[in-house]
Amino acid sequence: MKSKAIFYHAGCPVCIAAEQNLASAIDPARYEVEVVHLGSDRSRLEEAEGFGVKSVPALVLDGAAFHINFGAGIDALR
Amino acid sequence: MKSKAIFYHAGCPVCIAAEQNLASAIDPARYEVEVVHLGSDRSRLEEAEGFGVKSVPALVLDGAAFHINFGAGIDALR
Repeated sequence: MKSKAIFYHAGCPVCIAAEQNLASAIDPARYEVEVVHLGSDRSRLEEAEGFGVKSVPALVLDGAAFHINFGAGIDALR
Repeated sequence: MKSKAIFYHAGCPVCIAAEQNLASAIDPARYEVEVVHLGSDRSRLEEAEGFGVKSVPALVLDGAAFHINFGAGIDALR
């Protein structure tokens, strides 16, 4: 059975960069990746908070929350 | 040809959690994953900074740096 990976975001430029790079790099053979837009699907907020998600973008792997900060992208500053 | 993923860390508990979960979840069919301990391999510091790495743990995917913060692990607080 595949493990569950949930990528929570809110459509921000940083979120989109993280989704296109990090979330899409997750091994599809081992993980079932779900992408949740918390801005448009607020019914999932409580679930995200339950995993310890404090900010977006965040990736929950096997129930553990990893907060992602995209550091130094010039494009995000424009 | 595989893309390059570099996971920079420094042996901290948060780094180890991120390595065991996030770095190991990267698709090995598409990415060649290298793990670099910046504490013991300081010769790689300049390279990491060149990718925009400001803190560890960080994952560089296709040259883009993602800083990872593991949020709410109780074990890290003990």
